Amino acid sequence: MILILTPDTDTGSPEYKKLLQHLSNLPNIRSRVHRETGAQQILSEVYLIGDTASLTVEEMEGLPCVERVVRVSVEYRVLGRHRDGRRSTAFEYNGVHFGQDNLNVFAGLCAVDTPEHVERMMQALQEHGQVCTRMGAYKPRTSPYSFQGYGKSCLPYVFELAGKYGIRVIAMEVTHDSQVREIRDALEQTGRPTGVMLQIGTRNTQNFELLKSVGRQQEFPVLLKRGFGITLEESINAAEYLASEGNHRVVFGLRGMKTNMGDPHRNFVDFSHVPVIKRLTRMPVCVDPSHSVGSRDAGPEGLLDVFHVTAQGVIAGANMILVDFHPVPSKALVDGPQALTLEELPYFLEDVRIAREAYERRVALAERFAATDDTTRTAGTGAGN
Amino acid sequence: MILILTPDTDTGSPEYKKLLQHLSNLPNIRSRVHRETGAQQILSEVYLIGDTASLTVEEMEGLPCVERVVRVSVEYRVLGRHRDGRRSTAFEYNGVHFGQDNLNVFAGLCAVDTPEHVERMMQALQEHGQVCTRMGAYKPRTSPYSFQGYGKSCLPYVFELAGKYGIRVIAMEVTHDSQVREIRDALEQTGRPTGVMLQIGTRNTQNFELLKSVGRQQEFPVLLKRGFGITLEESINAAEYLASEGNHRVVFGLRGMKTNMGDPHRNFVDFSHVPVIKRLTRMPVCVDPSHSVGSRDAGPEGLLDVFHVTAQGVIAGANMILVDFHPVPSKALVDGPQALTLEELPYFLEDVRIAREAYERRVALAERFAATDDTTRTAGTGAGN
Amino acid sequence: MILILTPDTDTGSPEYKKLLQHLSNLPNIRSRVHRETGAQQILSEVYLIGDTASLTVEEMEGLPCVERVVRVSVEYRVLGRHRDGRRSTAFEYNGVHFGQDNLNVFAGLCAVDTPEHVERMMQALQEHGQVCTRMGAYKPRTSPYSFQGYGKSCLPYVFELAGKYGIRVIAMEVTHDSQVREIRDALEQTGRPTGVMLQIGTRNTQNFELLKSVGRQQEFPVLLKRGFGITLEESINAAEYLASEGNHRVVFGLRGMKTNMGDPHRNFVDFSHVPVIKRLTRMPVCVDPSHSVGSRDAGPEGLLDVFHVTAQGVIAGANMILVDFHPVPSKALVDGPQALTLEELPYFLEDVRIAREAYERRVALAERFAATDDTTRTAGTGAGN
Amino acid sequence: MILILTPDTDTGSPEYKKLLQHLSNLPNIRSRVHRETGAQQILSEVYLIGDTASLTVEEMEGLPCVERVVRVSVEYRVLGRHRDGRRSTAFEYNGVHFGQDNLNVFAGLCAVDTPEHVERMMQALQEHGQVCTRMGAYKPRTSPYSFQGYGKSCLPYVFELAGKYGIRVIAMEVTHDSQVREIRDALEQTGRPTGVMLQIGTRNTQNFELLKSVGRQQEFPVLLKRGFGITLEESINAAEYLASEGNHRVVFGLRGMKTNMGDPHRNFVDFSHVPVIKRLTRMPVCVDPSHSVGSRDAGPEGLLDVFHVTAQGVIAGANMILVDFHPVPSKALVDGPQALTLEELPYFLEDVRIAREAYERRVALAERFAATDDTTRTAGTGAGN
Repeated sequence: MILILTPDTDTGSPEYKKLLQHLSNLPNIRSRVHRETGAQQILSEVYLIGDTASLTVEEMEGLPCVERVVRVSVEYRVLGRHRDGRRSTAFEYNGVHFGQDNLNVFAGLCAVDTPEHVERMMQALQEHGQVCTRMGAYKPRTSPYSFQGYGKSCLPYVFELAGKYGIRVIAMEVTHDSQVREIRDALEQTGRPTGVMLQIGTRNTQNFELLKSVGRQQEFPVLLKRGFGITLEESINAAEYLASEGNHRVVFGLRGMKTNMGDPHRNFVDFSHVPVIKRLTRMPVCVDPSHSVGSRDAGPEGLLDVFHVTAQGVIAGANMILVDFHPVPSKALVDGPQALTLEELPYFLEDVRIAREAYERRVALAERFAATDDTTRTAGTGAGN
Repeated sequence: MILILTPDTDTGSPEYKKLLQHLSNLPNIRSRVHRETGAQQILSEVYLIGDTASLTVEEMEGLPCVERVVRVSVEYRVLGRHRDGRRSTAFEYNGVHFGQDNLNVFAGLCAVDTPEHVERMMQALQEHGQVCTRMGAYKPRTSPYSFQGYGKSCLPYVFELAGKYGIRVIAMEVTHDSQVREIRDALEQTGRPTGVMLQIGTRNTQNFELLKSVGRQQEFPVLLKRGFGITLEESINAAEYLASEGNHRVVFGLRGMKTNMGDPHRNFVDFSHVPVIKRLTRMPVCVDPSHSVGSRDAGPEGLLDVFHVTAQGVIAGANMILVDFHPVPSKALVDGPQALTLEELPYFLEDVRIAREAYERRVALAERFAATDDTTRTAGTGAGN
Repeated sequence: MILILTPDTDTGSPEYKKLLQHLSNLPNIRSRVHRETGAQQILSEVYLIGDTASLTVEEMEGLPCVERVVRVSVEYRVLGRHRDGRRSTAFEYNGVHFGQDNLNVFAGLCAVDTPEHVERMMQALQEHGQVCTRMGAYKPRTSPYSFQGYGKSCLPYVFELAGKYGIRVIAMEVTHDSQVREIRDALEQTGRPTGVMLQIGTRNTQNFELLKSVGRQQEFPVLLKRGFGITLEESINAAEYLASEGNHRVVFGLRGMKTNMGDPHRNFVDFSHVPVIKRLTRMPVCVDPSHSVGSRDAGPEGLLDVFHVTAQGVIAGANMILVDFHPVPSKALVDGPQALTLEELPYFLEDVRIAREAYERRVALAERFAATDDTTRTAGTGAGN
Repeated sequence: MILILTPDTDTGSPEYKKLLQHLSNLPNIRSRVHRETGAQQILSEVYLIGDTASLTVEEMEGLPCVERVVRVSVEYRVLGRHRDGRRSTAFEYNGVHFGQDNLNVFAGLCAVDTPEHVERMMQALQEHGQVCTRMGAYKPRTSPYSFQGYGKSCLPYVFELAGKYGIRVIAMEVTHDSQVREIRDALEQTGRPTGVMLQIGTRNTQNFELLKSVGRQQEFPVLLKRGFGITLEESINAAEYLASEGNHRVVFGLRGMKTNMGDPHRNFVDFSHVPVIKRLTRMPVCVDPSHSVGSRDAGPEGLLDVFHVTAQGVIAGANMILVDFHPVPSKALVDGPQALTLEELPYFLEDVRIAREAYERRVALAERFAATDDTTRTAGTGAGN
């Protein structure tokens, strides 16, 4: 059960204390407060865990500071929608808004290689108005004998260059909790010139110890990629590990599923699940076209498949794009063959804009239709199930 | 090897006879002529089969009537692109154009049930400017104890109603060659009021005897759906069975792949393969959002997943949409839960228009970019491989 | 609902007529008699279809000639076990017993090529006491440009050679109902020197028209192979198409599922489903190690993987083995690389014997244990669910 | 490149020092010594990494102490067979032999719950001559709200009871490197009454940080389970992470693959890969029938599917069985429905013995056949590729 408090509830107020006092006396119930500081207001939610079946919604709505009560199922307890369309599906981080209602592009290097390449990438991003990027320092590789990333040694210059070119958030994969410390230290040491979104890759989707550790920290938001070979439900449950430890700022990432049914693409593109995740949970949804497609093949119109699947994700409402670029793809240490070039960056961004605009027109159409039709209005409500 | 003749070559001319004469003298080579009558001109291609390695392109281009020569690989011999972007990717049928360059919507009944429902469907289509539909008379079902369709008994009234409401092409599944005869007979008997596109379902994708039989007739074009559990390459090879028997008017249909990785959708939506099929072959590509999704679930914006995946197919260049509608979904005999209602038809068509327009803007963008950039121009060419 | 009649019920007796008379008067009920002539006795079952919910088991057991009544669910109506362990799981064909209780080996040519190879194969089988074989005359191939089998032209000599070497049953794939006629004609023409088990391959598992046609004839038993990309339940439902048309003599074949998870084997070996099919249905179960493995790779002990997976099928109770041999694998027209040699035949048969003996010892152990333990007896009963 | 030294090479001898001296002077080559202390002798191997292409086998075989030289490919560098059938495929741990040539049964509790259940399990094992078991203290669960295991708090009593009943090796899953320390501490604290084989589960197969950490310690051997959704090759590469860090004592575990194609089993049983892993690598192979099958369903003979798939693994040469038992399955906290009872333990062990005996007879048959037949001898050799 979740108690949604009136916005900007003062945690020093007597009403708030009275509320906590009351909750602490409930038998077999533990409570946990989650506060989200947005641009406009502070939202507080109190999670009640334990024998909540004995509580009534009416009773809890009568408590001080409580605006609304949502009864949740065990599944996706924190991140789920639970048939309630009014709870927040967005968060702010380092000045950037992440939500089910907007779109951020994270174009960048799959793997950091040289300061020169990092700088050329950052500069191109700034020139085209971008404030987010991807930069891989820790690279989990199938074979132990492959290049494993430059690790913490490259962090200082990556962060400094990000600051120099106005990059506010870098998506960066981590594979062990010690790396989170290394990132925090390097940010500290360089004067916090930028922010980091911790990325958990498909090989670690069910590395629950890593999820718990990353979930316990509140500093960095997390991008969790869907796992290979497991169901969508299991991957969403993995996201819940992050949230159950306290970190609700989670973006869910689609990157294709490994099966020969997806050939000739590297993975079977799964962006049709964008609306599913938005229906089931409050997480913004990211798509990774580069790793899904894995090549620079193009359709007969000259549009690369990477462009096509990006457009597919965006027209269905994707909120974030993680895409590989490289100043000199032939010199990339990891996944060069799929990387886009810096010359293609404005073209890619324009293609994304076309698809996003189409998505927005589609949403407006749905609203017009819902306003005139009963059938759909019902269907729309049912969608929150 | 394919000899592409000059348009409107006269088969009665001495040059043409001279060409055939020459070909008949080539050792270990058989030839087969394929003629496609379009709105503008008649295209003729001569397929040379056998020991073509000994022939040179130059030599063959020197023969009378020959405009151009394409050397093909064994794979997708007839339907493949073979790095040649100039061969036809379109055909006309009963006044409707099918090609890689346009889009047709086939909204209709998954299974024909009553004349009243068929009429309401047809009427709604006409009201919204549609000239194509889907109507299932023969329904292959997983269990022998399920409803199997009304078969030939419903054909006369379906065809007559189609004629009454200006429907020019009905996509209709067939599962045995005898059904093609039944369709031809019923069309004959009712005075050919409409046309039929034979649809081969996913359970029969590798029913090669059916493919050969349907490939041998030239009257009806064919929609071949991708098979479950086999690779895309194997499904395209199945299409080649149709073409190798002489019927080149083939549309390739995507309808999702059966695997639990696609849950909660009924099938794993595979519309990311739209550009792949257009790159590898000259077939127009159809998407079937209804059977892929299998439900009326909607995203939080109120847009049904069926709408979302349709938009995904279209923005990547799909050329045909096969989608289930029903006047009273609760009374549908097959797949009612996923059917759209007649009230949703204009809304669906408008949603499709938005996605198609976005696709066209993307193509125009690609052309502008290709005109200014060398990298992409090269990539575009490579795409034809 | 199934009425199991007392063995050797005389269809000319007054009691039997009285039974049929009574059944014909039941409202909304159709009945269908199935008779199986075994070595010992004739078994008759009457299937009641329609509104059977209104009938009681007691009432029907009181009718003349009725020994026992089984209420069946719609799923696997004819072939299912329906919690009844006493109905027949076996049939005789041309002097060979096929059942869930024994094991037949069908070693032979994947594709018939020359009379000489057929004869060498048959001769080797006779030398090692075999009376069954496999011989492919109709070969469905992924590409239309591959060899498609010699078809009806090879049938006469194949049948004659079978007769010469005492082969009683040949498993032979068919892909169209016309081929059943060709086989019947060729058998007739050559004086019925052998028998044929019609094999329906994985590409046609859901070719329901073929299943219905083959199900309507009672002359030949059928081996139905599991389909690619569909669930086991769907494949068993396909078998039910055969039975619902009247042909109950069906063997169910496992041959691996196509997915990259099975690499480096050609298919993902699924012989763990042997006990599942025997639990759910009354069909004998066949395993096809050659197409599952697809190579001659061997383990470090020198045992080929084809041998290993065969042993795995047999030790779990498989009832039939379909395995590719060839006198000169390098000259085989189809699937040569996986074929075993004639020199390996006695070795293979001995390996099978070891596994079968182990299976029989395991069954005896289970019986001893069940006799002394209550837990297991319950579990054993539950198994029939 | 691997230099295999003469057995019992004295690391203090002048020859050995001369060898190391020589190697240290090779340009661009690093070397690493691996020593395995067996019951009979000490085996030493020197791994040369770097620019080994410039070295010749002859040159290296001429160095002091070197008995034999194996040139390895990058894939599976340490654990692979590399066409050399003479290198060790076995190791000793706490008095128990693990190798590709024998079979150990690890029956036990999926999750430790109470001391009483642990004791009853251990006692039953001792009564039936078993010295290995499985005991889960750390349980990764799909949902964060499920029971996660008793962790380090249960370790002392588990180890003490193991010692009391003569258990020498406990397979125990770990999900974080800190747990290895907890296990080491608890063993230390209780006086090392038993040994532990660290188990890495399918969710962590590609948790490379955990693999590296576990690979760096030499105290405990490791059981690595195959990962979901990735190819067999990728899972074997994950094993190589352990070996590349220095721990070669790795057992590879099969436990089924998650796909609906395996229904009604929980996972698609993959024990046909037993000979593949033994052919490609030097690792002993473990099968986990409990998690593959996931139920207590039985075939019509009364044999549980868990028994059947175990027998399938063993008859193909499996070297270790991990199987769930519980004194009171209905009270098990995790996976109770699939657990076997203590009454079934002797019956299970006898069933395993039958299958193992069949395997041994098959190996003897293969040797007899190889001795008389040239074809197979060649095939056998090819198997080492």
